[in-house]
Amino acid sequence: MSDDGASPVRAVAASPVAPGDVVGILGGGQLGRMLALAAARLGLKTRIYAPEGDAPAADVAAGRHIGRYDDAAELTAFAAECAVVTLEFENVPVEALEIIQRTRPVRPGLRALATAQDRLVEKQFLRDAGLDTVAFHAVETAADLAEALAETGGAGILKTRRLGYDGKGQVRIAGPSEAPAAIEALNGAPAILEAKAAFERELSVIVARGLDGSIAAYDPAENRHEDGILATSAVPGGLSPDVAAAARAQAARVADALDYVGVLGVEFFELAEGRLLVNEIAPRVHNSGHWTLEACVVSQFEQHIRAICGWPLGDPVRHSDAVMTNLIGEHAADWARLAADPGAALHLYGKAEIRPGRKMGHVTRLL
Amino acid sequence: MSDDGASPVRAVAASPVAPGDVVGILGGGQLGRMLALAAARLGLKTRIYAPEGDAPAADVAAGRHIGRYDDAAELTAFAAECAVVTLEFENVPVEALEIIQRTRPVRPGLRALATAQDRLVEKQFLRDAGLDTVAFHAVETAADLAEALAETGGAGILKTRRLGYDGKGQVRIAGPSEAPAAIEALNGAPAILEAKAAFERELSVIVARGLDGSIAAYDPAENRHEDGILATSAVPGGLSPDVAAAARAQAARVADALDYVGVLGVEFFELAEGRLLVNEIAPRVHNSGHWTLEACVVSQFEQHIRAICGWPLGDPVRHSDAVMTNLIGEHAADWARLAADPGAALHLYGKAEIRPGRKMGHVTRLL
Repeated sequence: MSDDGASPVRAVAASPVAPGDVVGILGGGQLGRMLALAAARLGLKTRIYAPEGDAPAADVAAGRHIGRYDDAAELTAFAAECAVVTLEFENVPVEALEIIQRTRPVRPGLRALATAQDRLVEKQFLRDAGLDTVAFHAVETAADLAEALAETGGAGILKTRRLGYDGKGQVRIAGPSEAPAAIEALNGAPAILEAKAAFERELSVIVARGLDGSIAAYDPAENRHEDGILATSAVPGGLSPDVAAAARAQAARVADALDYVGVLGVEFFELAEGRLLVNEIAPRVHNSGHWTLEACVVSQFEQHIRAICGWPLGDPVRHSDAVMTNLIGEHAADWARLAADPGAALHLYGKAEIRPGRKMGHVTRLL
Repeated sequence: MSDDGASPVRAVAASPVAPGDVVGILGGGQLGRMLALAAARLGLKTRIYAPEGDAPAADVAAGRHIGRYDDAAELTAFAAECAVVTLEFENVPVEALEIIQRTRPVRPGLRALATAQDRLVEKQFLRDAGLDTVAFHAVETAADLAEALAETGGAGILKTRRLGYDGKGQVRIAGPSEAPAAIEALNGAPAILEAKAAFERELSVIVARGLDGSIAAYDPAENRHEDGILATSAVPGGLSPDVAAAARAQAARVADALDYVGVLGVEFFELAEGRLLVNEIAPRVHNSGHWTLEACVVSQFEQHIRAICGWPLGDPVRHSDAVMTNLIGEHAADWARLAADPGAALHLYGKAEIRPGRKMGHVTRLL
């Protein structure tokens, strides 16, 4: 049964999810945790599905399933307990969503997930939607890479098409001589060579699209990365109002083109003279939108819950400027000092173990 | 073992509760639910103890115990799972706290609870602390009431000393002829006659006191009641800065006099010319402080968790004016319209059943 086909389930799905109903979340990390907290504020119950036993999201949910993403029976049992199902990370297998949507609506849908899971499909989708991206070339073999590098001036970033995040699964290539090592590093996985963007800054827009097609885009954040991991998001940062407006409009175009329902993160490069390239999209709430918890009446987490439940979207206007700083690895050991910092809104994710590069929490300061 | 005695447990209790530790909450209503949500944001786990099976707080907690407040074995088992124990309503029997504090710190302590549970003890405590209250008289018999009415000009409010809330357990007396019916309505329970206050307005201060004796008082809210139940809280409402400052100072004096740890609600009457009478105190987070969730970086709920965990108190400064409106009974059926109201921060408590007079949720609007 396709999400677009008529069925009794679709008829049920068209009525809004009501307070007291259960929202299912695939994935048990900090994004699922903050989604569960937002859902609770609206009187909804949440149920977490995750393979691991110590999922931070499960500590704040009314129910949980421990199960693999390829366990059809467990996924079906989970769906039966939920009014609607969503996800907190984009590498949930599409097949898991196919199983769930036989009986329950899944939002965002399969198309957004399939698009975001493959960098090549994603870039082609963005171009088809009329948006600019860096130059890119599909790479399966050493010969493909040599040909691609000839067109990008010999340099670029080679990325696996699938399963990359936080800088993982990618290799920078400064010149053709580095090509063999790059191919080897990715272990023969299907890849994409992206030309390097000579960007002035990185920014992102958190955009929500409702079940009725309505759009609400938050103001863009200026993002700074360290070692491929988001370090800070500042709103408005150094962004000009014109660039901010253009980024919001482009993010809305992405959401419309995907017939998206929920919150979507759209990352951009800003080039000289304010020209924007879309870098990548994340079909979920996004680390660069955590500032909305303090600076907006409706956060990105509540906005996502509203959208997938068929509720009206909240007003994305911000009442304050803000800077969000991630607490990565050992930075979280500093919690006592941060708790004593007036004006710092501290968020810790309840992860039992500090590991290098692990997102342990974040701090938002209103300006 | 008393809370003031030296013991290995006290030594442990003196070190702050750390992220990952478990905060126990006695009571499973909306205040416990919002405390659990705040604790989760700080990376703490929560465990709810409540007699009822469908406690709204349990839906957002990592663990729960269903048990009676006089079940010593169950209370002790609960305490063993917690690093610190607090409460979300003031009618937890003092005996339950005595059992728990044999093995774990209970904050706020027994003294605050015992004081707030008895209107006569409470008023005497306030007078001893140098604060003004309405005139009051202990009433056990019809003769006591006649004598008391003679001193209050024949009118007043007769209230049971114990177990009153939201206007329950009280009878207004307009003249001596109504005395017999009033005595009968309270069914012979020990009572207190309070003179009516000719107040201009009602207000309240949410004050926090840390384990180190530090104090943080939020700005007072002007409160409006309907049928004895809080309807709205406005900050700053119609309060003058002088009255606001005096109320904050008096609330701090109450917290100090109780050697209090945690968040305390202090309700006042404002008379002509800004004179303040303390009406009553609540040894817990308070309905009139819900506006702090949106208008402050650290809400009353996070502030309470910080205090009982031995963390530094957050800055109580507010970044916006605010009005909080309770959703009582059938008002909550209006959730879909409220969700569509931009600027309205909607909170629903996840209660399965709407009942007349039941607090189902609230809405805060920033001004």
